[in-house]
Amino acid sequence: MSSIPSRQWVLRSRPTGRPSASDVELVDVAVGSPEPGFVRVQNLVMSVEPYMRGRIGGEATYAEPYPLDEPMLAPTIGRVTASADESIPAGTLVKHEYGWREHALVPASECTVLLHDDLAPADHLGPMGIPGMTAWVGCERIARIESGDVVFVSSAAGAVGSTVVQIAKLRGATVIGSAGSPEKVELVRRLGADAAFDYHDGSVKDLLRAAMAEVGATGLDVYFDNVGGEHLEAAVRVINDHARIALCGMISIYNSATPQPGPNNLIKLVWRRARMEGFLLRDHLDAREEFENRMAEWLHIGAVRPVQTEFGGGIEGAWDAFLGMLDGTATGKAVVPLTGNHVEKDCKTSESGGTISPDKEATR
Amino acid sequence: MSSIPSRQWVLRSRPTGRPSASDVELVDVAVGSPEPGFVRVQNLVMSVEPYMRGRIGGEATYAEPYPLDEPMLAPTIGRVTASADESIPAGTLVKHEYGWREHALVPASECTVLLHDDLAPADHLGPMGIPGMTAWVGCERIARIESGDVVFVSSAAGAVGSTVVQIAKLRGATVIGSAGSPEKVELVRRLGADAAFDYHDGSVKDLLRAAMAEVGATGLDVYFDNVGGEHLEAAVRVINDHARIALCGMISIYNSATPQPGPNNLIKLVWRRARMEGFLLRDHLDAREEFENRMAEWLHIGAVRPVQTEFGGGIEGAWDAFLGMLDGTATGKAVVPLTGNHVEKDCKTSESGGTISPDKEATR
Repeated sequence: MSSIPSRQWVLRSRPTGRPSASDVELVDVAVGSPEPGFVRVQNLVMSVEPYMRGRIGGEATYAEPYPLDEPMLAPTIGRVTASADESIPAGTLVKHEYGWREHALVPASECTVLLHDDLAPADHLGPMGIPGMTAWVGCERIARIESGDVVFVSSAAGAVGSTVVQIAKLRGATVIGSAGSPEKVELVRRLGADAAFDYHDGSVKDLLRAAMAEVGATGLDVYFDNVGGEHLEAAVRVINDHARIALCGMISIYNSATPQPGPNNLIKLVWRRARMEGFLLRDHLDAREEFENRMAEWLHIGAVRPVQTEFGGGIEGAWDAFLGMLDGTATGKAVVPLTGNHVEKDCKTSESGGTISPDKEATR
Repeated sequence: MSSIPSRQWVLRSRPTGRPSASDVELVDVAVGSPEPGFVRVQNLVMSVEPYMRGRIGGEATYAEPYPLDEPMLAPTIGRVTASADESIPAGTLVKHEYGWREHALVPASECTVLLHDDLAPADHLGPMGIPGMTAWVGCERIARIESGDVVFVSSAAGAVGSTVVQIAKLRGATVIGSAGSPEKVELVRRLGADAAFDYHDGSVKDLLRAAMAEVGATGLDVYFDNVGGEHLEAAVRVINDHARIALCGMISIYNSATPQPGPNNLIKLVWRRARMEGFLLRDHLDAREEFENRMAEWLHIGAVRPVQTEFGGGIEGAWDAFLGMLDGTATGKAVVPLTGNHVEKDCKTSESGGTISPDKEATR
């Protein structure tokens, strides 16, 4: 079989502050036939995610840095176009890490065959993917959300946060969300949050207090933290006894070259006998099957609605999409479709299943 | 029966910064015979503890403020001198909360009869009392110290910390302690710590790194935090995967009227999947019997050595003793004997069982 032309993004340097166009290069390559044990995949849609910032910068965090002068990695959904491994025939829809490129040669052992292939490909990057499972593990295993809990979620219109809002409501909690624009706040309410605020409208401390008053809550049982900083301090301030704070990530510091002061009120963790716990999915892979089955069901019945932003421009637009995601221009899961005509540079936000029937409401 | 003369410390005002002599008054009273259901206790020795600072100030913390214009409370050991409750005859050694006075009328229901009355009365305020049980619960239930763990303890010559050092060693951990003077550092090493440093000798970050190198450790599995602030930030910096941080108290902030910035590196809790948890004894009263039996055994065989500072001056010296304890002049448990001739104002530090036989070493 002959080679096919492809393009891929290669990392050229490691930024310390905000990444820029000079840190990467879009390179033309020819992708040959797969060697034994490999498949060739045409990538349909790839993910851009906050944690990639750390892998680009090469800080010693929880994930290996991307090597310099090689194409970067990203969770990606694609269709197998040529196979040299009998377990994955051509035509199979798979998830893998070899994104940032149009066509990829992938070891069959690193492909996950998508069982729920009736869902939209992008759903496997959002609610069925890393963000969705992060939300699930944080809610079920770390925060252990129970019926009646008062739950506060930051970045509640984000890929993880929008799923946390919906899972917490399904678990019977009262939910307060914060987000970064009036449109996002409106979305968070549509997802079922009992109160939501735009953190630009004042101090998080005051806005959170007003939201708590709106839902008749005097304290928080759970804070699902996606941002750190002022949000974390404001949440610690009003925790209830035995509160749980799930630390998921702190996007506010990813672009910061100097450390920011932490919350000045951690003594509250003693007074309230509260637990603050960080987590990564790698420790919870045993939850995957239960999670995927439950989430697929929720998606099918419309009890969880995917929230995503599609960045246009195809492979050429992927780097700008990543920067846009870091800047907060995306709502929900940020994805980059890699096939079709994507000439526009704008991004398009959608909520699947935007109209919820009364029956579906009842399942919430 | 006739009344007997007594003196007691009454709270007159609530300080916001460091407490001073004008906040309290030593008052002469006459203590009458016990009403039915009460006993009269001659107090032998009382405790002064950091958490009392919060109850004096009246901040909404985890404990009720001491009422103004009434005698304050403190864990105290005394002997019943008159009883109007058949369950506690005269002569019984009891623990109760009616300290800050020479003689007290105490409801029998609020007296704990001391089962292990062969131990020194002050031991019931230290390793057998609140500090010892705090150390036990923090080690066993919060930090869950296991053999092979690398454990860092701040305020390691304090009442709680000195017990944590010894429990952690008994559990097979490698132990690093920090303390506030060369003498305290020496004591911490004598208690069995594998390394110890004086936090005045440089930045905690550097001193901790040097101590870790001394014991061949590359990270911490457990940090038992008694102080917060710089210690907490330094510890978070070097936690291992799945580390546990037990938050016991933050004496560094008790006297501070303005909040201090928290650790700037809490994102490490995510990367290391670490847990930080505050606790109070009130949630762990079910552990008391197991704790007391185990600790009494350890004390009898010399596997745990009480560390205490006796402040002189009897009841008259109690307030200065409290301030001295807050200022860090005490080593180990700070106690105030209330009987006998205590004319000196100085404090006397002792380690019981200072000489350990080879047999006893073997049990560690």
